[in-house]
Parts: sequence; C-alpha cells; structure tokens
Amino acid sequence: MTDHIAFSVDKQALLLLDQRFLPDREECFVCRNTADMIYALQTMVVRGAPAIGVTAAYGCYLAARESAEAGPAWKDRLNTLLTELEQARPTAVNLRWAVERMRAQWAALPAASLDELLSTWLGLAQDMHSEDIEICKAIGRHGADLIADGDTILTHCNAGALATAGYGTALGVIRAAFEQGKRIQVIADETRPFLQGARLTAYELAKEGIPVTVACDNAVGHLMKRGMVQKVVVGADRIAANGDAANKIGTYTVALAAKAHGVPFYVAAPASTFDLRIASGDEIPIEDRTPREVTHIGEHRITPENVPVYNYAFDVTPAELIAGIVTERGVLTAPYVASIRAIIGGK
Amino acid sequence: MTDHIAFSVDKQALLLLDQRFLPDREECFVCRNTADMIYALQTMVVRGAPAIGVTAAYGCYLAARESAEAGPAWKDRLNTLLTELEQARPTAVNLRWAVERMRAQWAALPAASLDELLSTWLGLAQDMHSEDIEICKAIGRHGADLIADGDTILTHCNAGALATAGYGTALGVIRAAFEQGKRIQVIADETRPFLQGARLTAYELAKEGIPVTVACDNAVGHLMKRGMVQKVVVGADRIAANGDAANKIGTYTVALAAKAHGVPFYVAAPASTFDLRIASGDEIPIEDRTPREVTHIGEHRITPENVPVYNYAFDVTPAELIAGIVTERGVLTAPYVASIRAIIGGK
Repeated sequence: MTDHIAFSVDKQALLLLDQRFLPDREECFVCRNTADMIYALQTMVVRGAPAIGVTAAYGCYLAARESAEAGPAWKDRLNTLLTELEQARPTAVNLRWAVERMRAQWAALPAASLDELLSTWLGLAQDMHSEDIEICKAIGRHGADLIADGDTILTHCNAGALATAGYGTALGVIRAAFEQGKRIQVIADETRPFLQGARLTAYELAKEGIPVTVACDNAVGHLMKRGMVQKVVVGADRIAANGDAANKIGTYTVALAAKAHGVPFYVAAPASTFDLRIASGDEIPIEDRTPREVTHIGEHRITPENVPVYNYAFDVTPAELIAGIVTERGVLTAPYVASIRAIIGGK
Repeated sequence: MTDHIAFSVDKQALLLLDQRFLPDREECFVCRNTADMIYALQTMVVRGAPAIGVTAAYGCYLAARESAEAGPAWKDRLNTLLTELEQARPTAVNLRWAVERMRAQWAALPAASLDELLSTWLGLAQDMHSEDIEICKAIGRHGADLIADGDTILTHCNAGALATAGYGTALGVIRAAFEQGKRIQVIADETRPFLQGARLTAYELAKEGIPVTVACDNAVGHLMKRGMVQKVVVGADRIAANGDAANKIGTYTVALAAKAHGVPFYVAAPASTFDLRIASGDEIPIEDRTPREVTHIGEHRITPENVPVYNYAFDVTPAELIAGIVTERGVLTAPYVASIRAIIGGK
C-alpha cells in the first residue's frame, strides 16, 4: 500500500486516500492549495508523523504555486503560507522537519525564479516520498530481528503504510518479520477516540493476510497478564534528545502495562522524528483536539450533552520504559542520550 | 436515582430503566417472566453487580409465578427456572448470591404452597431492594473519609445508582463526599466497549451537579502523569478470599497506572460481592461477550469485516494493587486474607 499519497502532475494536485472514512469506503481527497492541505492535516484525512512530513513537502510545492497570485510579492506570500502549513499540527516534528528541508533548498537557491523553485521543489518532494518508503523498509529490516517466531505483537494506533508514504514504521517491523516467514500475530488496540487501530491497522494488516485481532485499549493489562502479548511495537510523533517519545494518546498507558509484565516495548521511527533541540519529553507540545471526537462516533452522540471531555491527542512515554528505538540506521538502546548522539546526531 | 428498578404489584412485572439507550433516551423495559429477565441481564438492560442481585431476586419471584403453569410439578419447574436465571451471567457473584438467598428462604419453608412462597419471596425481594440502598449509603459514609477536599477521583465503568438499587458503590463514595461539601471532581473513563462511563456515570453525576469529565480509557496514564488524579474508586463484580477483585475490563490497567503514579486505588463493594469459596482471582470466570459490542457502535461498524476481536468483559485486579476495599461494614486493608476473614467472614 504505497499509493494513498499520490501527486498528480496532470491535475497539479495531491490525491489523498481519505483516512476518515476507512474501512467503510475508499474515497479520494484532492488538495489543490494550502487551505486544502491544512484542512487535510487538521481533520486527519492524512495522519501519522512520516505521512504528515511527505504530505507537507507536497504542500510546500502547492503553496509555491498558490503564491504566484501575489505577483512580484510571491516570496512574502510563500513565506506566510509555509508558516501556516508548518503550524497545522503541533506534536509531530516531521511536519516542521519537512517544511524546513524545503525551505533550506530554497535558501540554497536565493536567485531562483518561482518556476525554477517549483520544478526543484516537486523533485525534492518526490524524493522525500520515495525516501520515506526506503526508510520504512530499513526500519523493518532492523526491527524484524527483535521479533521471534510465534510472537504476538501488540501495537497502538496506526504506524503503518497509512501513517507513512508506505510500508510503515511499527507495522514495517511487523511486515518485515512476516515476510521473513515468522509466524506472528498482531493485536491492534482500537485507539480511541479516532480508532486508528480498529479502522486503519486492522484494515491494512487484514488486506495483506497478517493475522490481526482488535482489542479495546483498556484490555491491554488483562491481555498481558494472560501471557497473550510477547512484544509491543509502536510509532512516534516526536522523540526528544533523551529518548522520551511522544505518540498517540494511550501509548504511555500501554508502556506502563508492558513494564509491569516484563514485555519489551519498542518504538519504531525514522531519524526525522528526533527533535534534538529539546532535552526531554516535558518540552513536547501536546495537541488538544476537538471534544467531538470523544462525544460522538459518526453522527451518534455517546456522552450526555454538556458533559466536558478530555481529548489530549498524544502522550509521552519516558525513555526508561523503552527497550529500544528502531530507526533506519539501526536499533538504539539505553543510555539514549549517548546512542541518539552517536547515531542520530546533535550536540 | 432509586427508581430505575421498580416492581409493579399492579402489573406483576419488573420495570427496568433500559440502560442500553442512555443517555439518548429513558425507556422502560418490562420483565414478566424468566426469559425476559435473562434477556435483560444478558443484553445489559440492567447491569452492575448489586443491581444484578436485586433484579435477580425479583426474577425469582417472577419465575415462581411462571412455575404455576406446571401445575403440581411447579417445584421442579421453579428449580429449573432458578438454575437458568442463576447462569445468565458468569462473573458477578451477586447474581448467584441473590438466587441462593431466595432458595434458602424457600428451603426454610418446605411445606409452603406456591401462593405462600410468592408472598414471602416478594417481601424478601423488596427487603433486598431497600437493603441495597442502605448498604450503598453505608459504603458511601465509610468511603467518604478517604476523599480529601479538592480531590479529583477517577472511576472506571459505572458503579453508581444505575449499577445498584440506588446511590451506588464507587459513586456512593463520591456522592457521600460531595454531600459532605467536599469540592471534588470526577473523571469518568468512557469504558469501552459498552461505554458505561461515557453514557451512565456521566449521566447520573451530571444529573446531580457533581462535576464530571469524560476521558477515553487509554488516557489514564497521561492524566495521572500530569497530576490530574488524586484517587481511583471503582466497583467490583466478585472479590476472592485474598482480596483479588474482578471488575469491568480495563480496571486492572487503571490499577497498574495508579500503582506507577502512587495514586491510591480503592474498590467499593457490598459484602455480598465477596466469594469466600474461592482463594484467589485466578478462579473467577471471565465472561467473553459478543464481538458485536466491539465491532459496532450502534448500527455503525468500526472495524473491517472478518477481523476478529477480543471482548473479555472483566479483568482481575490483584489485591496488592488495592489500597482499601470499602464495604458497608468498614474499609478493609491489607493483609486482606485476615481483614476479609475478620469483617466479612469465611473460614
């Protein structure tokens, strides 16, 4: 599954498989400008840190096209649009990383005309797109070594093909182990409130014949106590310089249960997920999303009117609960400050 | 809220507020015979261990009325109906406890005619009904001492008025603390898949003006890490002689998070919830419910077709994670084998 993010040169538009409607129906969402892109990111037409990065790279290209409207002032207009795009979602660092990478290329070509920039940026976005798939496959190769024949692997949210340009990070590890012929099973936490596990992880694994069972998030302790989980593998939206990892709300609760039961808990994420500017997870901004995601399922209201809800979209798992961080460059282990500095970079 | 289980002498029927449709609409479910009762218990028209007990007591009375059809063989017929009723749900011991209490009274009146038994049983069921409310109020009084002014209390599932004849066990503690003028807040875990927290706990607390906020189950770790939870209070469906407590699926995951954050975790339950015939929670049967509760919300399917799900309805929290068990006779603390023997009874 590598075609859920597709740039149409013909239409000059980014075509996204609309993840809000999966597994019910496969519908295409067309982004033609920055407003479309921001809407798609904020409503989670597309979600998952690496997928957000690749989408944003194409978003920069569409923003550049849009800036033509400003005539000679296109550079100012483009800078404004890029800033808006960059701020569409706060937690995943890959969004900022992608926009910064596009900006850096522009900075390296200060004399470029808008047409020259457009041509360069489309090439870079396409490179980032195919790079992401290669990175996921490398994560899969490194991570598959951690998986034993017969393991049942629990995952939270969707860190799969749909969360990346294809193949997936956490699900990349699972795919690679499966492709090696290991007999594995997957438990997909349903992942309230947006149900990425029940809807997306179950959908993409079932499509490929990888055995998957959905469980409500709150069952994780019980399943581990019964010995039904051998490994946990999840993705990440931002990893601090000390290894603390932000991921979908509920990941930390899974990590606590894993710790209590001696189940190894792994994070799988590309190098672009590390934010070496921040020392620890305490500095990672946590997105607070609309109450409606919790109060309603589809059009159906499940909570009484006028009762408030919490809808923090992410939480932070401290490094000490993480058995290893699987990247395209290898598996990092504790002490993370040192392994991150050695393999990812930073001060 | 003490009228959600009401026996109509006029109609000779048990009238239940149908909890499947709350908070959407307040609809009455009428039970006239054993089949109605078993349907109501199994589909969770009524649920919650003490409410199941009181309902089953009236169910014995309706079974006795039904047994009249068998003419002189009414005793055999009644015994069969009682056995069917007793087996409607496996985990909550209060169901068996209630039927056994009714049977014991019958055994004490071996010469009773069916009419005499009916009159005696209706009286006993009504006594058990009002007793349950008094028991919950006593649980509330003992438990309120554990709650400090300013506390935010997290609860899982619904151990409220709707789970008892009225007032509630865990929510009885919360109600009593609120009535004492303590400024408290409640976080109701939504409690997938049946959403007892989002639907029922939120509904009954909001009705009484007790501040309540709903959170997805998986947020519990994050909320505790942010210091947003001072106490956890939950109900129980069966407590073993060593203090291990079965309760709604997800309770154990909450207990693990509470342990990791040093948040006291209390269980509130009447003496009838203790099953002194079993030594530990390992012996408690865990009900496995229909996949449809997980795969669908209302008529809306959320998982892909043909993907299996786990739907264990309960889990067991080991005694070592429980800071105290609040009963109508006082608060039991570790070592539970001794405190249970002293206060509840048993060998």
